[in-house]
Amino acid sequence: MRKAIKGNIVYTEIKEEFIVYDDSYLVYEEDIIEGIYEELPTDISSDNVIDYGSAIIIPSFIDLHIHAPQYIQIGLGLNLGLIDWLNKYTFKLEKRFSDVSYGKRVYPHFVESLYEHGSLRSCIFATNHDASTRVLMEELKKKKLSAYVGIVNMDQNAPEDLLVDAEKSIKITKEFIEDYQNNTKIKPIITPRFVPSCTKKLMDALGKLSMDYHLPVQTHLAETKPEVKWVKSLFPDAKNYSDVYVRADLYGHEKTIMAHGIYLEEEEIELAKEKNTYLVHCPNSNMNLSSGIMELTNLLDRGLVVGLGSDVGAGHEMGMNKTMSAAIQCSKIRHIINDEERILLESEAFYLATNVNGSFFGNTGTFKSGYKMDVLVIKDDDPLMDTLTPLEQLQRFIYCGGPDSIVARYLEGEFI
Amino acid sequence: MRKAIKGNIVYTEIKEEFIVYDDSYLVYEEDIIEGIYEELPTDISSDNVIDYGSAIIIPSFIDLHIHAPQYIQIGLGLNLGLIDWLNKYTFKLEKRFSDVSYGKRVYPHFVESLYEHGSLRSCIFATNHDASTRVLMEELKKKKLSAYVGIVNMDQNAPEDLLVDAEKSIKITKEFIEDYQNNTKIKPIITPRFVPSCTKKLMDALGKLSMDYHLPVQTHLAETKPEVKWVKSLFPDAKNYSDVYVRADLYGHEKTIMAHGIYLEEEEIELAKEKNTYLVHCPNSNMNLSSGIMELTNLLDRGLVVGLGSDVGAGHEMGMNKTMSAAIQCSKIRHIINDEERILLESEAFYLATNVNGSFFGNTGTFKSGYKMDVLVIKDDDPLMDTLTPLEQLQRFIYCGGPDSIVARYLEGEFI
Repeated sequence: MRKAIKGNIVYTEIKEEFIVYDDSYLVYEEDIIEGIYEELPTDISSDNVIDYGSAIIIPSFIDLHIHAPQYIQIGLGLNLGLIDWLNKYTFKLEKRFSDVSYGKRVYPHFVESLYEHGSLRSCIFATNHDASTRVLMEELKKKKLSAYVGIVNMDQNAPEDLLVDAEKSIKITKEFIEDYQNNTKIKPIITPRFVPSCTKKLMDALGKLSMDYHLPVQTHLAETKPEVKWVKSLFPDAKNYSDVYVRADLYGHEKTIMAHGIYLEEEEIELAKEKNTYLVHCPNSNMNLSSGIMELTNLLDRGLVVGLGSDVGAGHEMGMNKTMSAAIQCSKIRHIINDEERILLESEAFYLATNVNGSFFGNTGTFKSGYKMDVLVIKDDDPLMDTLTPLEQLQRFIYCGGPDSIVARYLEGEFI
Repeated sequence: MRKAIKGNIVYTEIKEEFIVYDDSYLVYEEDIIEGIYEELPTDISSDNVIDYGSAIIIPSFIDLHIHAPQYIQIGLGLNLGLIDWLNKYTFKLEKRFSDVSYGKRVYPHFVESLYEHGSLRSCIFATNHDASTRVLMEELKKKKLSAYVGIVNMDQNAPEDLLVDAEKSIKITKEFIEDYQNNTKIKPIITPRFVPSCTKKLMDALGKLSMDYHLPVQTHLAETKPEVKWVKSLFPDAKNYSDVYVRADLYGHEKTIMAHGIYLEEEEIELAKEKNTYLVHCPNSNMNLSSGIMELTNLLDRGLVVGLGSDVGAGHEMGMNKTMSAAIQCSKIRHIINDEERILLESEAFYLATNVNGSFFGNTGTFKSGYKMDVLVIKDDDPLMDTLTPLEQLQRFIYCGGPDSIVARYLEGEFI
């Protein structure tokens, strides 16, 4: 049955500009968008139309890098830097998820927060605890969200009681994959934490799992300078950081997410371009942990695929809108330092969080015919703001919006 | 009558560390703090105690730089840079306040937002429209907030219909001062917009008003490189930007707020130190307009007085907590670029927004005996967060808090 929602429709097809349809109908059938119409097609009954008035209708957000257990530590210990922060906060916290009752206590709140902030799809790092990760999957399902979720594999260089040896780690990962691989909305993803946490044996086995099951990979790459140095000392034979993943078949065979990518060598940039790697820019995290700032607009201009991630808990904002505004701020800072580097357009920030991030999941993130009907309806509750144009409403949401601004959420045509 | 509120009390006396009293009583009489007690003094009846349980009790925030009319343009046009942004958005908007009905429409929302975000005191730029500015004063009064409010003087280099010639500008400013100078909570402040907007004649007359009425001064200083160059071309005889204000008696005779101060010459830094000038760091604004980033920790280490401002609407966050986290982020970026420059501590960011900003208003911003009973009570409504220590609760509020986290507000002992 064809249905429609009505409002001011805003989205992107190319990164350089927004497309705006004032006061129009977004028509869909089941889970799929049919098209945008200025007048309601005559064969659609008004009973099947929801009119959102002056609200804006945009593609729902996709968060390409977020850590579920770290939800509880947002904002804490952020003056420590990556490695100290991991040791003093994150690893201690992640250990607690060995008790499934802790997962049951925390994950419903994390999932609720994803929902509230409009991140209806996301790529999630859990922990290496099987039972708690399954709780996360069930919570996502209950809330009707879509996600790739990874059991986080790590067998070295973390507190002993958080490590799982390679064989056991592969065993629980494999069981997890087999149980969830046929799901459509909530799926497994191969997740080595990052090179320093993984032996060669573990990475090789994960690479094999990815190839055997045709599963995408998510991990971290070149987030901080000390980490890059550490990786070089751990794998002196590798050409560079990326090459460690390449040699383990964890890079580029399947869709690959490499979070951060701040300190990439020229060869690694070329490789990322060749393999259409999803480099994920996480601006708030990178500022909070003093990691560095990715040369985002340069990479975009060279044709690389760059997405956006909240990277909660090192990032302190769950909302992809706030991740966009932080990405714009970061590009401005790089521009201040070197005015040959250009500023990220608002349309580009939006394009990254919707079109690019969406493409990791398939046909979502824009309002082309045949794409998934994944939608947020945004309305500022400040009565002053009804004088704003649809694009101004969106600008304001990008900078100041929050859960209260999101008045409706649709995933695959379903109001959730 | 002595009263008390109970909770986890957190504040600063020096910038290097927080002071924390778990589960204690903040005792006050009328508008003044008496002290902090672990046990309730026996002569205070429990009827006069409000127990806020596990919430944290902190000094209320003071925003040292904010533009009231720009409330309506938060988030808009931020990719333009200062001068274009002023011409294309701000000046057009400010003109609308010539119609007092527009002031009546916008200012209640602005004042409500200050209240909601816990900025119970603030230093506000209005516009050069007398009637609308008086509406703002009345709204602040109704909401029981405290503020310095300035009629914004500008008689050149802006759209013709927004300029007010020096004589008329001084006349309305003087009338405004005389009507409000005896107020205790809502007071006038001398406000030349910034050097490029003011003739020498106007600045001299404003300097005289400040001296005659013993009124503080607020204006802008060295926010962007093109502006500094412009000032030099307008006043080629002045030693530097600051010197233009000095020569007009607008600098250092009374308490002086100089917003931004990013591009200061060495001599200007020395002058600011000598005069105890309130330089106001506005990190979100400075990132959003690609202005630059103040060398904050260097200036603090040299003993300068630096406060914090939201600088709404170029800043997109009304909350001083988000201004703190942005200030920390900015210091981290400067640290990444030059690791000899240190990162701003969380306690320092808090100290700036409470102690330093408060000192502009007198005895407020900390919980010393004899200080004003100006308080926010903060409670995260996420049930998971009850496991956090008081300092962790505060950290989390700095990064993620909003109006919903503020459960009570007291100004001068009155619950507002």
